[in-house]
Amino acid sequence: MGGPNIKEQQQEEHPQPVRAARQTNPFRLVLFFIAGSLAAITLHALTSSNLGLRLRQLHHLPSAHYLQTRDEFALYSVEELDAFKEFYDKSVSDSVGATFTEAEQTNINEALGALRLAQDMYLAGKDDKAARLFEHALALAPRHPEVLLRYGEFLEHNQRNIVLADQFYFQALTINPSNTEALANRQRTADVVQTLDERRLESLDFKRDALSAIHESSAALRRAKKEAYFQHIYHSVGIEGNTMTLAQTRSILETRMAVDGKSIDEHNEILGMDLAMKYINASLVQKMEITIKDILELHRRVLGHVDPIEGGEFRRNQVYVGGHVPPGPGDLAILMQRFERWLNSEHSSSLHPVNYAALAHYKLVHIHPFIDGNGRTSRLLMNTLLMRAGYPPVIIPKQQRSKYYHFLKLANEGDIRPFVRFIADCTEKTLDLYLWATSDLPQQIPMLIQTETEAGERLAQLQSPHLSQSAQMPEFYESGSGSIP
Amino acid sequence: MGGPNIKEQQQEEHPQPVRAARQTNPFRLVLFFIAGSLAAITLHALTSSNLGLRLRQLHHLPSAHYLQTRDEFALYSVEELDAFKEFYDKSVSDSVGATFTEAEQTNINEALGALRLAQDMYLAGKDDKAARLFEHALALAPRHPEVLLRYGEFLEHNQRNIVLADQFYFQALTINPSNTEALANRQRTADVVQTLDERRLESLDFKRDALSAIHESSAALRRAKKEAYFQHIYHSVGIEGNTMTLAQTRSILETRMAVDGKSIDEHNEILGMDLAMKYINASLVQKMEITIKDILELHRRVLGHVDPIEGGEFRRNQVYVGGHVPPGPGDLAILMQRFERWLNSEHSSSLHPVNYAALAHYKLVHIHPFIDGNGRTSRLLMNTLLMRAGYPPVIIPKQQRSKYYHFLKLANEGDIRPFVRFIADCTEKTLDLYLWATSDLPQQIPMLIQTETEAGERLAQLQSPHLSQSAQMPEFYESGSGSIP
Repeated sequence: MGGPNIKEQQQEEHPQPVRAARQTNPFRLVLFFIAGSLAAITLHALTSSNLGLRLRQLHHLPSAHYLQTRDEFALYSVEELDAFKEFYDKSVSDSVGATFTEAEQTNINEALGALRLAQDMYLAGKDDKAARLFEHALALAPRHPEVLLRYGEFLEHNQRNIVLADQFYFQALTINPSNTEALANRQRTADVVQTLDERRLESLDFKRDALSAIHESSAALRRAKKEAYFQHIYHSVGIEGNTMTLAQTRSILETRMAVDGKSIDEHNEILGMDLAMKYINASLVQKMEITIKDILELHRRVLGHVDPIEGGEFRRNQVYVGGHVPPGPGDLAILMQRFERWLNSEHSSSLHPVNYAALAHYKLVHIHPFIDGNGRTSRLLMNTLLMRAGYPPVIIPKQQRSKYYHFLKLANEGDIRPFVRFIADCTEKTLDLYLWATSDLPQQIPMLIQTETEAGERLAQLQSPHLSQSAQMPEFYESGSGSIP
Repeated sequence: MGGPNIKEQQQEEHPQPVRAARQTNPFRLVLFFIAGSLAAITLHALTSSNLGLRLRQLHHLPSAHYLQTRDEFALYSVEELDAFKEFYDKSVSDSVGATFTEAEQTNINEALGALRLAQDMYLAGKDDKAARLFEHALALAPRHPEVLLRYGEFLEHNQRNIVLADQFYFQALTINPSNTEALANRQRTADVVQTLDERRLESLDFKRDALSAIHESSAALRRAKKEAYFQHIYHSVGIEGNTMTLAQTRSILETRMAVDGKSIDEHNEILGMDLAMKYINASLVQKMEITIKDILELHRRVLGHVDPIEGGEFRRNQVYVGGHVPPGPGDLAILMQRFERWLNSEHSSSLHPVNYAALAHYKLVHIHPFIDGNGRTSRLLMNTLLMRAGYPPVIIPKQQRSKYYHFLKLANEGDIRPFVRFIADCTEKTLDLYLWATSDLPQQIPMLIQTETEAGERLAQLQSPHLSQSAQMPEFYESGSGSIP
């Protein structure tokens, strides 16, 4: 975690729409009045409500099953949620902010102005302009219910992106659980989205079965596995900032010789992933139960080369991960025991493997039991669970680092589904890599993500993170190996 | 351990004297007869005696205090010796050999021929030729009592090298404890040598006190410490085969960047020594007791970067170290407990720090509790004990690798004193390095051992290991920093 401050970036990178809003002088006075009123109401709603309490009340609403996303995935039982409450409340209240700074207030005012304008454009049939203005409003006030609801409705009705629309409604509910508009909207979207998510997972099973049908002795499969092995390590260390290229990663693992101009730590991160993968293949994949000891042994291998003292040990200090404040070191033992119990529970084994694996990843990285290497260990645990279910180890491309952290942040704020969908997407892309490499077509095995393509995508995302995200969303539901270049 | 097979090298590298012996045709028939008889007697003595039993009986001879070298240093108590007996007997009997191969028998015959000739030369006043022939005989039959006794007497009376002479007599006694000639010879030398050894240690204390008198704030002292820190790591990993230069070692520790063309392991060996030294300075030096846990923590740091799994763990397999067969993994726990008890005993704290530290080093490397890193950990333990007594961490130059292993082998065979003298020598050289660097003279801090000088010395040693050793022996008793170039 600990990515760049997205909010700041967004402010810097949208000078154009800001100026556009300022040029619409006739609207400004009216907008400022409305914005001020709305901000005051919002402020009152936020300061007068105990968010943590309301969030928990959410779980007891019997009829509002469309609100129970956290429960559907059994993110935490109510008792467990109590244990997390202290630091969860802290991180949520930190990001929501009971009071706004002057700069934040200015942003909210401007966002509400852009929002009103976007709706005017929408009504006038100027969808492109409307989309840009909605995106701008979201960038300025990403957690403002009004922005989330209006943008969500636009996405639902105009862009046919019901998944992202539902995500925005849900987000509005995590901010104010009694928001009646959001509740009404979700009554339309929740079931549809759940069905879409389920179908998506079924299509993954289909591809997994296609891959399983290829005989172990296939030369192409073995070649694909070897190539994917290097790519998996390359991306998993790269996502944490390691600068080794795929070729250098491969060379290090094949020769154990140093690469000039790189730090020794970067070498050791690669050796650590290799050691951990060998441990998974030789031991963990066959195990019926994954214990705390197994996770510690995994971590010892991941971090041990870089830090022989901290490898395989829980942290002994409080850490801060961007906006997330993980539990104190004194709570780690009990939280890890609960995690272990969940990991081996009947409930978790009844989940779809991708749901199960993604949740395990999220839960572990949320507890953040180690001083370093939490991300790598969590991804390896996820892949262990996927491999036990017949999936290949899933690659999360380093180029999707910002997306990955954004979805983890959304999960921290209450909605795990975007993260699970992201993992499902990566699972599919990885399956496609194998299927493509073992089909009759290929001469050469491609990289999961071409660096050029991704660099372009990344640039576009930085320039307009939410727009590009919504534009890509339907891709999640496209299948077939055609998406691999 | 596991250095080159010295015996084979010696055979290959002495073609000249072999031919010389063959040219002395008139002597050959007589020599062969005598040699054959002696060999038969020796063979009988060896096969009919239980060496282990006799060695233990040695400890109970009340009057023969000059035989109690092992006891003087409390190498192992009689009870402990029993525990070691099994593998000790094995390694001794392996090297002594109850029966000789044809090649060995030929060597012994030739050695005894050279020996007779050497004595003739000695009587004829041709000391140089005699020395060369004695050396040749020793190279051919390094554990033959006749060779050891005659060469020892030559060293004692002609070369005034009483220390090496006593070492040879002692060696003859470890092979046959009832060798009356050896007993008689040691009655002359044992006390003298002990006095010399004691004086030697006193002179080290004197230099240590001179170093202690320099104030901590001295810029020269701090510079010397820093330089010695790099040299210490450089030599300790170099002695195990690491090929990094001193400049590369320094660069790695200062920048943490990889050096092109070197293995990642070689980098990690250096990082491991650094981590371990920091642990010693921050924690171990202040501790009153050194426990098994401390030794494991030391080892975790030494080996952890290279091998995060084995770092800090006792080995789980039998290992073989050259001719030495360390205890089985099942015996490690009890042997380490005994070692811990000895380490913190009143007896060991009554020893001179150099004796204590060298013995601790020897004992630990003899138990060989780890799969790898035993040498480095033992040297670090030795240095911890020396530092607690006010000595600097002692550098064992990588160029003296063969000597170092030779003395460890002699200790395995029963005589710890040559190893302790070697450590005393290294201690003095290290003290000299500091004293030289903090004197008014130096502009630049020298390397402990100049590579060129040492390379030459090493070559000479390979060509004639025992002669060069005996020639250097008196150097042990020379003091002053003049020996540092």
